[in-house]
Amino acid sequence: MASTAANHLCASLPSKTKTSADFFLRVQTPNAVSLRSSFASPSSLELTRGGNSTRVRSRSRSSIYASSAQVMDQSASKTGSKAAPTIVEVDLGNRSYPIYIGSGLLDQPELLQRHVHGKRVLVVTNTTIAPLYLDKVVVALTRGNPNVSVESVILPDGEQYKNMETLMKVFDKAIESRLDRKCTFVALGGGVIGDMCGFAAAAFLRGVNFIQIPTTVMAQVDSSVGGKTGINHPLGKNLIGAFYQPQCVLVDTDTLNTLPDRELASGLAEVIKYGLIRDAEFFEWQEKNINALLTRDPSAMAYAIKRSCENKAEVVSLDEKESGLRATLNLGHTFGHAIETSFGYGQWLHGEAVAAGMVMAVDMSYRLGWIDDSIVKRVHNILEQAKLPTAPPEVMTVEMFQSVMAVDKKVADGLLRLILLKGPLGNCVFTGDYDRKALDETLLAFSKS
Amino acid sequence: MASTAANHLCASLPSKTKTSADFFLRVQTPNAVSLRSSFASPSSLELTRGGNSTRVRSRSRSSIYASSAQVMDQSASKTGSKAAPTIVEVDLGNRSYPIYIGSGLLDQPELLQRHVHGKRVLVVTNTTIAPLYLDKVVVALTRGNPNVSVESVILPDGEQYKNMETLMKVFDKAIESRLDRKCTFVALGGGVIGDMCGFAAAAFLRGVNFIQIPTTVMAQVDSSVGGKTGINHPLGKNLIGAFYQPQCVLVDTDTLNTLPDRELASGLAEVIKYGLIRDAEFFEWQEKNINALLTRDPSAMAYAIKRSCENKAEVVSLDEKESGLRATLNLGHTFGHAIETSFGYGQWLHGEAVAAGMVMAVDMSYRLGWIDDSIVKRVHNILEQAKLPTAPPEVMTVEMFQSVMAVDKKVADGLLRLILLKGPLGNCVFTGDYDRKALDETLLAFSKS
Repeated sequence: MASTAANHLCASLPSKTKTSADFFLRVQTPNAVSLRSSFASPSSLELTRGGNSTRVRSRSRSSIYASSAQVMDQSASKTGSKAAPTIVEVDLGNRSYPIYIGSGLLDQPELLQRHVHGKRVLVVTNTTIAPLYLDKVVVALTRGNPNVSVESVILPDGEQYKNMETLMKVFDKAIESRLDRKCTFVALGGGVIGDMCGFAAAAFLRGVNFIQIPTTVMAQVDSSVGGKTGINHPLGKNLIGAFYQPQCVLVDTDTLNTLPDRELASGLAEVIKYGLIRDAEFFEWQEKNINALLTRDPSAMAYAIKRSCENKAEVVSLDEKESGLRATLNLGHTFGHAIETSFGYGQWLHGEAVAAGMVMAVDMSYRLGWIDDSIVKRVHNILEQAKLPTAPPEVMTVEMFQSVMAVDKKVADGLLRLILLKGPLGNCVFTGDYDRKALDETLLAFSKS
Repeated sequence: MASTAANHLCASLPSKTKTSADFFLRVQTPNAVSLRSSFASPSSLELTRGGNSTRVRSRSRSSIYASSAQVMDQSASKTGSKAAPTIVEVDLGNRSYPIYIGSGLLDQPELLQRHVHGKRVLVVTNTTIAPLYLDKVVVALTRGNPNVSVESVILPDGEQYKNMETLMKVFDKAIESRLDRKCTFVALGGGVIGDMCGFAAAAFLRGVNFIQIPTTVMAQVDSSVGGKTGINHPLGKNLIGAFYQPQCVLVDTDTLNTLPDRELASGLAEVIKYGLIRDAEFFEWQEKNINALLTRDPSAMAYAIKRSCENKAEVVSLDEKESGLRATLNLGHTFGHAIETSFGYGQWLHGEAVAAGMVMAVDMSYRLGWIDDSIVKRVHNILEQAKLPTAPPEVMTVEMFQSVMAVDKKVADGLLRLILLKGPLGNCVFTGDYDRKALDETLLAFSKS
């Protein structure tokens, strides 16, 4: 499978220069729409709308180094057990909220308690996480706060349980416990728990408050931020859900100490994604620090989480409901969702499917002449170093991809829009305006006909 | 059962005068919060917040008569088959939408088509309504508009099917039909269809557009307006759902020609409710015109629908998410939901349960000394004339009421807040500040211990 994928890696790319030049020309036109950002300077992110595509260029070098320096300072200032968390703000008007990132944050009850509404809390977690962290979270919610009572519901662990049947267990528990509109739901776990708890909070009594405590890299760098919640349908991932923002996200990096290696790598796929779509310097940093991340160096990990959250928060602030820009966060996900749905939910971890999906998106971008082969190679290299897949499972057929991709949320009026790389590292497009042949060739190169 | 309820009707009311005077004093204080309204003049609706209760007084006489005259004019201007609809605007900023009311509106495709987004439509309806109106609606959606394709899903009819299992059939159909984010859901039916289709639209792909075409009085005067959507849980009504506004509501009064008498009466319970909680003149009009409504006089029916929609739209515009004022629309519903849940969904129609619930709320208001006995009698009289129940089913016990009321959405931090009448006709309070004894007495008077 990998050898099929590699077939074209040394092919020449005749049309590259022209396309690339065209790209730079377009993003620098005076017509570019400059959007509000709470992190970067106004000039550092620009979105050009043209026809059916959204083009994005990465942030300026100066703003990148500023972020980096800020993290170093905060790490250096830690004194003992009560280190101040790094805070990344998600700017959404009256639905804005902070992401707290740091070590030992679950030992700082005031962080969590300031975001609890009412006197009743329902912690939603799973069979893997409950024995590790549920007691700790209950203490964090109730220490010095005797008026608060905490219920919990422990769901089975795995993507295959992210469905309506499992969701109903959350409603059952909430209703049996007689929780009312002033209660708070707390998601304690990875992306599956966060997505299900968030959707349950959105729908219970037509909406109650909730808090995210993500315990996997995947959830800490991606799924807990931005308010996408939902469940899977047998025919496709995340097809039922809501945009619903939490009161806060609390990332205690100590929870990663218990994370299996395979889960760690899965989360890194999303970290790598941010570099590819909008943050070339971050990608370069990852290339240099991939071993530090794999060996869980706390400082490297904290930096990767913060930088990822900043990228995500910035995109979400600009386009909460995914009318354009936000879709770029789904690089590799259309192919990846097809893998997860066809291969069976829970067979591969989400990040593993996304890694293979990113390789396919990069392959297609290259076939279209939109990127040069050095990017293709660098993507392969970093994913291989992270021990992530660079091709889909062997059972996948072209038809499997096509049937799942037809119900993807990014289809509009029958046209499948994809996130593809275009131009130098750190630039991508979200577009339905591409040569169908390139998609067919990519599917054929990576799966059985 | 009715005789138990009547036991106290002739009792004296010692504390009435004092409470009533206190009420008038409070609503006329300069501290009253005046809220924005798109219908009434700024002075015609005032909301005073004090302690745990929300007090509302009815609109001024002048604004009421203005509304009435407007309808007469519009009815008089009808010329042939293409009468302009009466339009009531629901003012919710960028989520504002019109309610079109009139005869023959389904024969005016342009009304519907201007609110259809994208090229794909899913009509959600039921086995009773589909044979009557589905073809007509498909024609209205597609006549002169060949790019639009319409799918439909036909659900079983009845409150007992307003559950997650039935809701999943909507998702199944939408996904199998490969509908995308640019599609439009159309709810064609009564309140159950509107609530389920609305929630499905809110959750499908995290939100798609939808349109309400209510075909019962209940849906036309109440449930299709205001964006409350959801499904029942075995333990309680409407416990899972979303606030999600439609693109428009289209009320073709001709659809009432096929409505069974029992359904008609059920809808009138909500019409009567508006009079009791905020529109005394409308209640007086109903007392005079109840026979015209029961015999489906088109002009009386159109006026009742318009006036009800105006009341609802005004309340929803002021308090979309039910932080206070909107809860007053639930007069009788807390008792009514207990009847529906305990007695079995679908045994009684919603309006029948609400009618019995209103009698209980009125009884409790009287026991508290908040209203005088003439109101109690007038409520009994109008409900009896409408052939609606004035007491719960005989099987109901105090414990049944208590266990369902404990999970009501209006419970906050363990305290059950109720909508009760207070003062002259057309005034109510939403409050948790009442003597428990009165509630216990009402439950005992209307159900078995």
